[in-house]
Amino acid sequence: MVHAGVMSGSGNLMDFLDEPFPDVGTYEDFHTIDWLREKSRDTDRHRKITSKSKESIWEFIKSLLDAWSGWVVMLLIGLLAGTLAGVIDLAVDWMTDLKEGVCLSAFWYSHEQCCWTSNETTFEDRDKCPLWQKWSELLVNQSENICLFWTFHGASAYILNYLMYILWALLFAFLAVSLVRVFAPYACGSGIPEIKTILSGFIIRGYLGKWTLLIKTVTLVLVVSSGLSLGKEGPLVHVACCCGNFFSSLFSKYSKNEGKRREVLSAAAAAGVSVAFGAPIGGVLFSLEEVSYYFPLKTLWRSFFAALVAAFTLRSIPFGNSRLVLFYVEYHTPWYMAELFPFILLGVFGGLWGLFIRCNIAWCRRRKTTRLGKYPVLEVIAVTAITAIVAYPNPYTRRSTSELISELFNDCGALESSQLCDYINDPNMTRPVDDIPDRPAGVGVYTAMWQLALALIFKIVITIFTFGMKIPSGLFIPSMAVGAMAGRMVGIGVEQLAYHHHDWIIFRNWCRPGADCVTPGLYAMVGAAACLGGVTRMTVSLVVIMFELTGGLEYIVPLMAAAVTSKWVADAFGKEGIYEAHIHLNGYPFLDVKDEFTHRTLATDVMRPRRGEPPLSVLTQDSMTVEDVETLIKETDYNGFPVVVSRDSERLIGFAQRRELILAIKNARQRQEGIVSDSVMYFTEEPPELPANSPHPLKLRRVLNLSPFTVTDHTPMETVVDIFRKLGLRQCLVTRSGRLLGIITKKDVLRHMAQMANQDPESIMFN
Amino acid sequence: MVHAGVMSGSGNLMDFLDEPFPDVGTYEDFHTIDWLREKSRDTDRHRKITSKSKESIWEFIKSLLDAWSGWVVMLLIGLLAGTLAGVIDLAVDWMTDLKEGVCLSAFWYSHEQCCWTSNETTFEDRDKCPLWQKWSELLVNQSENICLFWTFHGASAYILNYLMYILWALLFAFLAVSLVRVFAPYACGSGIPEIKTILSGFIIRGYLGKWTLLIKTVTLVLVVSSGLSLGKEGPLVHVACCCGNFFSSLFSKYSKNEGKRREVLSAAAAAGVSVAFGAPIGGVLFSLEEVSYYFPLKTLWRSFFAALVAAFTLRSIPFGNSRLVLFYVEYHTPWYMAELFPFILLGVFGGLWGLFIRCNIAWCRRRKTTRLGKYPVLEVIAVTAITAIVAYPNPYTRRSTSELISELFNDCGALESSQLCDYINDPNMTRPVDDIPDRPAGVGVYTAMWQLALALIFKIVITIFTFGMKIPSGLFIPSMAVGAMAGRMVGIGVEQLAYHHHDWIIFRNWCRPGADCVTPGLYAMVGAAACLGGVTRMTVSLVVIMFELTGGLEYIVPLMAAAVTSKWVADAFGKEGIYEAHIHLNGYPFLDVKDEFTHRTLATDVMRPRRGEPPLSVLTQDSMTVEDVETLIKETDYNGFPVVVSRDSERLIGFAQRRELILAIKNARQRQEGIVSDSVMYFTEEPPELPANSPHPLKLRRVLNLSPFTVTDHTPMETVVDIFRKLGLRQCLVTRSGRLLGIITKKDVLRHMAQMANQDPESIMFN
Repeated sequence: MVHAGVMSGSGNLMDFLDEPFPDVGTYEDFHTIDWLREKSRDTDRHRKITSKSKESIWEFIKSLLDAWSGWVVMLLIGLLAGTLAGVIDLAVDWMTDLKEGVCLSAFWYSHEQCCWTSNETTFEDRDKCPLWQKWSELLVNQSENICLFWTFHGASAYILNYLMYILWALLFAFLAVSLVRVFAPYACGSGIPEIKTILSGFIIRGYLGKWTLLIKTVTLVLVVSSGLSLGKEGPLVHVACCCGNFFSSLFSKYSKNEGKRREVLSAAAAAGVSVAFGAPIGGVLFSLEEVSYYFPLKTLWRSFFAALVAAFTLRSIPFGNSRLVLFYVEYHTPWYMAELFPFILLGVFGGLWGLFIRCNIAWCRRRKTTRLGKYPVLEVIAVTAITAIVAYPNPYTRRSTSELISELFNDCGALESSQLCDYINDPNMTRPVDDIPDRPAGVGVYTAMWQLALALIFKIVITIFTFGMKIPSGLFIPSMAVGAMAGRMVGIGVEQLAYHHHDWIIFRNWCRPGADCVTPGLYAMVGAAACLGGVTRMTVSLVVIMFELTGGLEYIVPLMAAAVTSKWVADAFGKEGIYEAHIHLNGYPFLDVKDEFTHRTLATDVMRPRRGEPPLSVLTQDSMTVEDVETLIKETDYNGFPVVVSRDSERLIGFAQRRELILAIKNARQRQEGIVSDSVMYFTEEPPELPANSPHPLKLRRVLNLSPFTVTDHTPMETVVDIFRKLGLRQCLVTRSGRLLGIITKKDVLRHMAQMANQDPESIMFN
Repeated sequence: MVHAGVMSGSGNLMDFLDEPFPDVGTYEDFHTIDWLREKSRDTDRHRKITSKSKESIWEFIKSLLDAWSGWVVMLLIGLLAGTLAGVIDLAVDWMTDLKEGVCLSAFWYSHEQCCWTSNETTFEDRDKCPLWQKWSELLVNQSENICLFWTFHGASAYILNYLMYILWALLFAFLAVSLVRVFAPYACGSGIPEIKTILSGFIIRGYLGKWTLLIKTVTLVLVVSSGLSLGKEGPLVHVACCCGNFFSSLFSKYSKNEGKRREVLSAAAAAGVSVAFGAPIGGVLFSLEEVSYYFPLKTLWRSFFAALVAAFTLRSIPFGNSRLVLFYVEYHTPWYMAELFPFILLGVFGGLWGLFIRCNIAWCRRRKTTRLGKYPVLEVIAVTAITAIVAYPNPYTRRSTSELISELFNDCGALESSQLCDYINDPNMTRPVDDIPDRPAGVGVYTAMWQLALALIFKIVITIFTFGMKIPSGLFIPSMAVGAMAGRMVGIGVEQLAYHHHDWIIFRNWCRPGADCVTPGLYAMVGAAACLGGVTRMTVSLVVIMFELTGGLEYIVPLMAAAVTSKWVADAFGKEGIYEAHIHLNGYPFLDVKDEFTHRTLATDVMRPRRGEPPLSVLTQDSMTVEDVETLIKETDYNGFPVVVSRDSERLIGFAQRRELILAIKNARQRQEGIVSDSVMYFTEEPPELPANSPHPLKLRRVLNLSPFTVTDHTPMETVVDIFRKLGLRQCLVTRSGRLLGIITKKDVLRHMAQMANQDPESIMFN
């Protein structure tokens, strides 16, 4: 045997890590990784470096570099994710404005940037600076037909702008869906369900590749600019994970170990949320709570570092938002106990918004199973057209969703020119600008109310159809918008009620006439948190993100009250969050830590072979020939085979992976002399005693895992599920009194869980 | 057999849960619980309730009550923990002031409360209201000797106050240590190391009992008031956990299941931190990151709820601090990139403060091993005397530590009368009150600087000797004080440097003359975070607590830079945080998730029996008599025995717990007819074939765990450690080719880990 000399005699599990032939220790696409083995391999690598580092200074420096490479990767991820997020922000700003008009001084300026240089200094005039031309103005000015110009300043100008708006939206959406279709099919959706699955140990090659990164970044800009009801927050997590995957491929520590790579990806997810919301702590918690599977303490620190670098890089991008906080709000009044009631009502609304999951999943299933799924481009075009046509007339849907949320969250100061702040002022008022008492609502507020109501209904309906199309699409921002709209309306309602009926017993204690008692913006914030919670089922990370988003540390009780209510209500309709629902829909082999398995089945009920099935395919330790094994491999498609002492005793000695058996036999046939089909294969230390003229036997102890995981047939499935989850197993052997009885794979566990929950067991993807 | 009729035939692990005899399923003191079994038991209980709930409306209501009991317990914990924290706060305020004087109108008023009713309205005068009398004034007024009065208004008054201060301190400390000694020895220390151990599955009876709760609450007030260098934050976690334990004993769901009880305790720990700092999110994260072992998602929500209720209750206590945030600060200037350098320096200082752990552990070990440990009362008295004598002359050590931190964190506004804000004002200044430019330091600042330096040195030294005495003592506040003092000094230094040398290249870009560039209070905050991180090694929870403590969301980068630096520096001196160090010092069987095991040993190296030792004590499935088993139990002290088919084959069929064997045999001898010493015990379904005249055999399948955990002898210890950690095992059996070879207990694992880390393996407590 070629490498026999370097083999250690201990027969250790790790022997084959000397990499005697290529591809050992890697996994096939759509297979599950073996967490325990990956961890062992990393410990081995670490041990080797540590022992080498004592040999020379050069090795010592190399070991230091290795130790620091984790931090370097984090720094690089933070820098790239922050830069990409900044570029996306700038591009979205420009392209969103492009739908309405263009800057004459430089076409690459957004509306705001265009008017920075103008001389008009008041807020209102700045919006109307002459350098920024709406399409109607521009097209007519160009033709220099004054007669036509006048005509255009009425309904026709509106229609021309309307048409341009729709055209641009369609163009952006078409470009986006085409790019996704042609170059990177994995770039669609939010990516979080798949990232959760990947982080739990599944291999999806190319999902985090360079093409996906590039196409997702470009198409994200396009779809957000097109005005579709989606956000860039979820996809940004995917983009950050692609960055993480790219940088981890540069360091052998991470590229060669799927377990370590997943640590980097967890941190990258944190960086993604960090730049999406400007919420580094929230990002780390989101990664910890929602996305990650294996999250050691070391990763916690590194995630934090990556999230911080990313947020800091984003903030340093010129022309961007210089505040770390996305929707900075500052309210001037505290909240009162009596307000808890409307807050809880908003929580109920948020929980009902959790029904979105059901509707969306039903629609996505329809897309998968009917002819609809065959025309993704047409679907995107149609939804974009409807969105653009309905959105333009309503000022609250025409603008970008994050601007909308920002306005809804804001408190009405004296300088606010928004329609939502059109209250009837008391002419005698001589208060400072920031301390404005409750006032009766003006016409603007009433107009805003019904516009908001229409926008809310539209947003709810269109989001169901948008999320899941073949374009990058996030759900955070639409959910928050739905909640914020509902919240603001409730807030204004309560405010007017308190103003007009301040003698009612519920208001009397805290709302004297002329006081500023109700802040409608706070209701919008609470509503947004409730809806976000209802749809994602986040807990701590949700509240922390809301804090970081708004800087509102004093409003923890309202936020929590709404979040808890929302969760309770939403859980009544189904325990799954949107990401878990999509994981199930796609049949990924994801063993959720949150699902509780409470059935009374035993390992013997789940293991294969079932009663009546042919016996388990096993290898014997020293009596099968190469040909026998090759036949067995050809005839079955199992991922591995238990190795037993003999077919009679059925005492288990180890487990051999199919992939490694194939590689080892191929390698031996090519390089080792005397290995023919009749050679006996043995897994023991010493070769078996063979007849004199038999061919040279083949030693395969190296590919034998001597510590396979076993449970007894009486083990409750509850325990088995727990073991699979916590240890990240691929398979587990079942024994009784030391005899091998059967095998349970992750796929078997998932199928059994689905059966128990009365789901369709066949929907689970190949393991 | 009495209960043979109700036994299910499946031979399920849970059969013995029908509770045929008392005490089955409970644990002895100082033993480790079996997490998997506790979990199984709870699932069984849950299943039973669910199936019963369909029978009648009453059962349905009962099942609803059961489902909601978790929330009820949380509510109760929150209410009690909040109330206790509030009461402690009020009592500490009063008793701290009692050391200096007394309120004439009502002796139970603190200084601040006393002066609320006075007519003086300015800040300075309010401190000197006539109703509040220092001891010197009071004692002399009482004697009504005017001549003496005049004399007393000098050095003598100072000395009298000094003496009274020392006397009160000694009285409080003596009371505290006596109460702890006599009534609740477990009330000493911070309690967090023990709570970590308990949450990991260890039983320490009485540690969370009612007496501990009562005595810890009372003595906590006493020791904090005595002015010792300790905080109430850590002990509050213990107090909250005692509340949790008390309330969980009221509900059978929690009182009868050690696993479920630990879920409640995790949430209670969160509530404790929540009230200690007014930081509900930080509390939950602290519990998640630092304290808890098993923290399912459900517990996360409930912890949050408990933490919120607790914080809210605390806030509602009259006369208390009405802000949720403990040290609310508001800074008026942002920070600049160049300031990162001093922030990182503070991080290094915080890391060096991590050396505190070594000094403190060395001192505690000395206390344990020398005669010092025999005089705890004397030790407390001596340390209190030294503390009081040294602390009184220095204004920064005389006041309570939290007041000190609060002052150090504060920015110098125009209204600030503190010595630290004694800058030389420009007479021409006409700025608004809050926007004050950098100014040259006045005499007060210089005085404050050297007083702070002395206070810093004193605090560092005395804290080493204080933490670990036989009184309740927390380390958060002293650590924060050390960091805040160092930080404030650095901050003032940088500020003065920037003022006097604003032409230096590092200042030129951001610090123009007359601008407000450096905020010394921010440096104090950063220093406090660094020191807290250095000593506890908290990560995310630290930063979140600092946020919630101060409301300073904009200062995430400085805080993180200091925290990361502090951690790196501190890790260079030893990986253990203070709590882990004390766990090791006390030899608790705690398997830390954070310790990495990277040695190349195998299960066969750790298992017992070692080579040369007598063979493993096993039971056979159907050939031992009652007497044989009783002898075996008497002669060994193992916690359980593997059951094998026969001594020859050594094929494992299950595991029987010592405690349950004893109970089962005792029970059978008392109640079952025909059971004598010669009766054969069998663990199989069917009784073995016996000679005709042999006595009635005893069936013991009920106490047999049919799914014991096994690993092969070739399993790397790394994997074994991982399994023990993640599944919370008590023991694990080692097999080779289906034959039983040996056993590995948690104690063996801990001993092996200690050996590998070159620690004293004998220090680990009985398992």
